[in-house]
Amino acid sequence: MTADKALSGLLTPEAALHRLADRLAERFTGVFARETIDRYVFESYTALARSASVTTHLPVLTERFATDRLTALAQAKGAIESSVCEVLFVCVHNAGRSQLAAALLAHRGAGRVHVRSAGSLPAASIDDAVVVAMAEIGIDITAEFPKPLTDDVVRAADVVVTMGCGDACPIYPGKRYLDWQVRDPAGLTLGEVRAIRGQIDERVRALLAELQPATA
Amino acid sequence: MTADKALSGLLTPEAALHRLADRLAERFTGVFARETIDRYVFESYTALARSASVTTHLPVLTERFATDRLTALAQAKGAIESSVCEVLFVCVHNAGRSQLAAALLAHRGAGRVHVRSAGSLPAASIDDAVVVAMAEIGIDITAEFPKPLTDDVVRAADVVVTMGCGDACPIYPGKRYLDWQVRDPAGLTLGEVRAIRGQIDERVRALLAELQPATA
Repeated sequence: MTADKALSGLLTPEAALHRLADRLAERFTGVFARETIDRYVFESYTALARSASVTTHLPVLTERFATDRLTALAQAKGAIESSVCEVLFVCVHNAGRSQLAAALLAHRGAGRVHVRSAGSLPAASIDDAVVVAMAEIGIDITAEFPKPLTDDVVRAADVVVTMGCGDACPIYPGKRYLDWQVRDPAGLTLGEVRAIRGQIDERVRALLAELQPATA
Repeated sequence: MTADKALSGLLTPEAALHRLADRLAERFTGVFARETIDRYVFESYTALARSASVTTHLPVLTERFATDRLTALAQAKGAIESSVCEVLFVCVHNAGRSQLAAALLAHRGAGRVHVRSAGSLPAASIDDAVVVAMAEIGIDITAEFPKPLTDDVVRAADVVVTMGCGDACPIYPGKRYLDWQVRDPAGLTLGEVRAIRGQIDERVRALLAELQPATA
């Protein structure tokens, strides 16, 4: 990263991020101070840039990440009501287990739960075999991306499911914490990832049945 | 992380963090909204907890990290004036190179510069050999700790020096960006770390001479 590089156009897309902050300020009028919106936008950008390998889509991903974090914070402070159970999956890289679990629960839940995922040490991208294994059962997760665990999404959660990330997740009273022992799919074959997909799917179905006994 | 664990006392030190937010709100009266202070405290805690191996000192480290980030942000928006040059060192783990460089520049600068450091993928702790190599030359860095790169410290910097962290650092106009090619001390012997210390020290002295031609 040299001055030359900066001059050649790899500047932080500051103008685009300011426009994003304008949009979010309008969306969250009366909920958050403008200072909070600005900080969320720029810190979300920097947090994703830290681990991203390709920076082309960063402004788009920043919009999704910052919007979701502000939504979570608004839910946590009661400014936005969530009528469904909020479930957060946390693993180390947010590239395998937590992505599988989040996508499966969102799919099986069909609108009856809202799902988020995060990682204690987010990877640059989701594992290819995980994307393929999900595509095989008709679930497209190509638009998902690894995100660092933040305080806001924990606060918004009713249920937090951790997988292999130790004590990385803040523990707040009034939430339900579960720890699932599931193998990390990183570096495994597609066959092995399918097996993990099956194990997680079983747990996801059981969780859903518990959360929604009437409709499961 | 089970419900039992939560009950047995490993709860997030929420009360201590709220008291910290009270102190910082007083310190930054008229500079930041209370919402900003609260977010900085809790997000700083979560960010450090993500990569920490030992969580005993997390409230103390959170106080230092959040205070420094808010100070940086106050400098960036002109609410706190910095009369010296602000230098930020960024490497991957903030456990070796950037810690060596920051400690050496702070020491050699003797108050004529202000130094920060951060990592794109912060480690759980500083490399032991790095601590030892610095102690040998009379510089104690045992109180330092790896911190994730945040937008605020980049904004406060006049000079940003990156070492091996690719494009992880946001590039803003008006700052000077340098990229130093220095070997990562992770896993190296004390002898090798001494050599790296020497290489970084040379660059640090040269940088200081440039920044402070009159006093160098």
